[in-house]
Amino acid sequence: MSAPTWKWFIEYTHPTQAHMHGVEQFVYSGKTKYQDVEVIDTDFYGRCLVLDGKIQSSQYDEYIYHEALIQPAMIMHPEPKNVMIVGGGEGAVLREILRHPTVEAVVMVDIDREVVELCKEYLPEWHQGAFEDPKVRVHYMDARKYLQKTDEVFDIIFVDLTEPLDDGPSYLLFTKEFYQIVSDRLADNGIIALQAGSFNPRFIEPHAAIYNTLKTAFPIVRSYWNFIPSYDSTWAFALAAKTHDPLQLPEAEIDQRLQERGITNLKFYDGETHRAMFAIPKDIRTAIANEKRIIADDRPLITY
Amino acid sequence: MSAPTWKWFIEYTHPTQAHMHGVEQFVYSGKTKYQDVEVIDTDFYGRCLVLDGKIQSSQYDEYIYHEALIQPAMIMHPEPKNVMIVGGGEGAVLREILRHPTVEAVVMVDIDREVVELCKEYLPEWHQGAFEDPKVRVHYMDARKYLQKTDEVFDIIFVDLTEPLDDGPSYLLFTKEFYQIVSDRLADNGIIALQAGSFNPRFIEPHAAIYNTLKTAFPIVRSYWNFIPSYDSTWAFALAAKTHDPLQLPEAEIDQRLQERGITNLKFYDGETHRAMFAIPKDIRTAIANEKRIIADDRPLITY
Amino acid sequence: MSAPTWKWFIEYTHPTQAHMHGVEQFVYSGKTKYQDVEVIDTDFYGRCLVLDGKIQSSQYDEYIYHEALIQPAMIMHPEPKNVMIVGGGEGAVLREILRHPTVEAVVMVDIDREVVELCKEYLPEWHQGAFEDPKVRVHYMDARKYLQKTDEVFDIIFVDLTEPLDDGPSYLLFTKEFYQIVSDRLADNGIIALQAGSFNPRFIEPHAAIYNTLKTAFPIVRSYWNFIPSYDSTWAFALAAKTHDPLQLPEAEIDQRLQERGITNLKFYDGETHRAMFAIPKDIRTAIANEKRIIADDRPLITY
Amino acid sequence: MSAPTWKWFIEYTHPTQAHMHGVEQFVYSGKTKYQDVEVIDTDFYGRCLVLDGKIQSSQYDEYIYHEALIQPAMIMHPEPKNVMIVGGGEGAVLREILRHPTVEAVVMVDIDREVVELCKEYLPEWHQGAFEDPKVRVHYMDARKYLQKTDEVFDIIFVDLTEPLDDGPSYLLFTKEFYQIVSDRLADNGIIALQAGSFNPRFIEPHAAIYNTLKTAFPIVRSYWNFIPSYDSTWAFALAAKTHDPLQLPEAEIDQRLQERGITNLKFYDGETHRAMFAIPKDIRTAIANEKRIIADDRPLITY
Repeated sequence: MSAPTWKWFIEYTHPTQAHMHGVEQFVYSGKTKYQDVEVIDTDFYGRCLVLDGKIQSSQYDEYIYHEALIQPAMIMHPEPKNVMIVGGGEGAVLREILRHPTVEAVVMVDIDREVVELCKEYLPEWHQGAFEDPKVRVHYMDARKYLQKTDEVFDIIFVDLTEPLDDGPSYLLFTKEFYQIVSDRLADNGIIALQAGSFNPRFIEPHAAIYNTLKTAFPIVRSYWNFIPSYDSTWAFALAAKTHDPLQLPEAEIDQRLQERGITNLKFYDGETHRAMFAIPKDIRTAIANEKRIIADDRPLITY
Repeated sequence: MSAPTWKWFIEYTHPTQAHMHGVEQFVYSGKTKYQDVEVIDTDFYGRCLVLDGKIQSSQYDEYIYHEALIQPAMIMHPEPKNVMIVGGGEGAVLREILRHPTVEAVVMVDIDREVVELCKEYLPEWHQGAFEDPKVRVHYMDARKYLQKTDEVFDIIFVDLTEPLDDGPSYLLFTKEFYQIVSDRLADNGIIALQAGSFNPRFIEPHAAIYNTLKTAFPIVRSYWNFIPSYDSTWAFALAAKTHDPLQLPEAEIDQRLQERGITNLKFYDGETHRAMFAIPKDIRTAIANEKRIIADDRPLITY
Repeated sequence: MSAPTWKWFIEYTHPTQAHMHGVEQFVYSGKTKYQDVEVIDTDFYGRCLVLDGKIQSSQYDEYIYHEALIQPAMIMHPEPKNVMIVGGGEGAVLREILRHPTVEAVVMVDIDREVVELCKEYLPEWHQGAFEDPKVRVHYMDARKYLQKTDEVFDIIFVDLTEPLDDGPSYLLFTKEFYQIVSDRLADNGIIALQAGSFNPRFIEPHAAIYNTLKTAFPIVRSYWNFIPSYDSTWAFALAAKTHDPLQLPEAEIDQRLQERGITNLKFYDGETHRAMFAIPKDIRTAIANEKRIIADDRPLITY
Repeated sequence: MSAPTWKWFIEYTHPTQAHMHGVEQFVYSGKTKYQDVEVIDTDFYGRCLVLDGKIQSSQYDEYIYHEALIQPAMIMHPEPKNVMIVGGGEGAVLREILRHPTVEAVVMVDIDREVVELCKEYLPEWHQGAFEDPKVRVHYMDARKYLQKTDEVFDIIFVDLTEPLDDGPSYLLFTKEFYQIVSDRLADNGIIALQAGSFNPRFIEPHAAIYNTLKTAFPIVRSYWNFIPSYDSTWAFALAAKTHDPLQLPEAEIDQRLQERGITNLKFYDGETHRAMFAIPKDIRTAIANEKRIIADDRPLITY
């Protein structure tokens, strides 16, 4: 251990559950118009971006989160050209999308310009210059409004938001109304992929509700998941599509598409990882199947 | 929240990493000849057994740990009759083994009689009376000595030990010498399954070393894993065998065998869960492949 | 250190201030009709009584609290015969009062019989058998009601209550109406002494308000204080009287009275300690002088 | 509460005792040649200087510490002209000394130039420009060496050091050899005053040893103390002198000297505060009287 033991970041996930991270350095601390922002160098997971007291990603394991969010949808789509990102402040989703030579244009819409500027400055290992790519356009505005006004059509839309906290900026981007808007802006074989709450069975209700809600707008909806070390938890993602099904894509085909697109340096994702992520343990399968809740603008999802 | 917020169990996994659990009641606290024992009613995960400061299993999620440890090997084996348990104090491994009507005899060898007595008293939901089953014999002694002296032959041997702490009772049960002893006591199609360290990629070395060490004694060795909520981490298991390979068992066959044996009330394990557990994400696959260490009696594994 | 480091009692004094005590053993945990009760063996301060999450007294330093509460008033009074205690569950105030051979009768009125019974069982070093003294009568009822109905006259009334928490049993025993009732039941040279909140200058308002409120009922009111290690804070007491003034009692006279009464084994209190306790640092003197608040039944004091 | 609850400074005073301070902002973090330095804005006590994990002084209560360290000796001396400070990085001791119009010259010798520079920048409320006063000279070197080489004679020498930690810079400035050197550089009616360890009776040994050690070099030695809220503890000081005795100075004389010197804006110190600080509770008086240890260069004092 090189960190002193007197500086701690304590992340509460429940009034009686918390994770303590010893801190090397609190690098940046501030408030934007929308949220509290911390950049923290932890001893164990390196640099972390923390929004409203929740770790968003860490230097050590952001590759897991970002490959998991981006690569399944990108590989499932035979030729993703036009991609949109809702949120995505760190720039690592851009980095993952731009690995694919098929991509012609990426539109990123994030409400919080200050967070994006901070990420550009403090998280260079995340974006690796992706913001400078000529294929990329960034808009700082409400993504729902953007989608309602544009007439663009996207092959894939990624939704990479903070959890829907009570006073946070994102809770209206988890509703059936929003997913209908997304569906309307997707091509006929379009896909949406999103981070979708904790996958800890003790906290599974929000994810199950998101899964249910996606079903109101898409014929194919799949949960997937993995373990994010710096979250001290498994995390859920969801993928919804008009025609493609991630369960129908053979492992060998995944590895072959990665090779064909020249993507050889992923650390986390490949065919076997795909299989692991889309196989759901029975207890959680049961919990998701039992959930009846549909999230709507007038009955939003709020997490702790 | 119903628990007061002034009583906490804090589990350190590293000098700068800790998990805080709010406590409803500290039910039992004591020291046996071998280890510190706590029985704690946490607010979030219910009753927990804590040995030497580490949660062993919780009321809420012990089904995950125990089904994962026991069911894959039991199902892979076409007709498990004679089964041995090394460790296994809580009695939940007994409970899982006894679900299988093929079983004729179970020998459990645990060094710490006091812990077993405490589990009988304080963890009735774990053992559910399994200690009283006439097929079960329990010996309180060093399991390695037991295996060296017996001439019994087992279909499956389960190893359910605490982590090999510096001054703990288990570190000589993680070595190549021990695994050779186990192999000698297994039938020609015998299987060993064991809990095998953290699966967090940041803590993967102990598991990788156990995997490597098993390879010195068995032709087939497979890692598997899942997420244990009360550990705030994924956890690793390993399965080694003389002829059976868990990767060759089709999902449908697993579900069929469960049905044939009349095992219908598992909460966690089935064919799809089997697939999830034995699929290893690429980063960890790489880390395991790169590990060269072999654990031996004179170079034992000690964890934090 | 002999305690394990995984069991902690964390006492919050403010949302951003807390004290962590490593725990050897949580000895008793329960709820009475009025409050949460814990008996905790801490590593550093030994056994502690904790009510509603607040340490009331510890084995290591209860002598400081109890000598400070009792001895100044007892020594100031030339011949205390009839003494009353409001609260005082642990029995240590009884013990301190009974050191004085002048005492003929002590009435203790505590609302919470269960706490008193628990103290008798778990805190023998506190009461040292004082509950068995034939001079002592204990009533389990609301002390205010007792005082309103009785026609007894007391030389000294001690008030030893928990802090006036929102839902706790004591907040109506800190008001001007209550102090008037006390005054009516005191002899012409009677004295009241009470624990009276934190003396930390950052938390001084409650004490200052109690001081002010006492002034509505008594001609002489004095704050005094000392440091209670297990509270991690200085603590305030108050003494109000009809004729006697603790500032007028010379140190030598205090030591002589102790000797005359045969009290030779106090660890904390004597003439010099009296001087220390009744001398108030300027900052707190100023804060008390500036406080205007009077606590009343309809404007009660509630602390965090 | 305005601070977030996810950033904490945790100060351990013992392996099983810790104080948690919620943090608004970690302002500065670094290592000098001698020590770890943090400047932290806590929610409760405002800005704090933390050296090697220990709070040195806080914005809210530094007036208590610094008036207590400086004013008794300054007032006891009828005409302090030449004053030396050993340590004193924050500059608040300078500020307190310079209140006295009798002062002609102040020499401050602190080994850690970087800490002094940081205090100048980050703690302006502490020094209030005192470093710029033409009467002040600052030397960055070992104070013991300075005293051994100089032929200056001082009326008062203040010693304001961090606790003597194992690997810290100060442990050779708490020994009988050092106090003899100090005595040799003091005028015939000279005084030394120093911070001298915790006054918590559970931690009193270091203070008692310092007191004993001072007795080897000075005819008059007095302990004094007060409560420092941000330390969550009482703190000890010691004053040793060749002729003046703080116990012989009447309260009224103290108040008169303050007035004569035009010092009207102290928040903490005056005659009554002096009385409070120099009166020692009996338990600690006993502990100090029983301590036999003398600190020497070859048997130094090291605290946790």
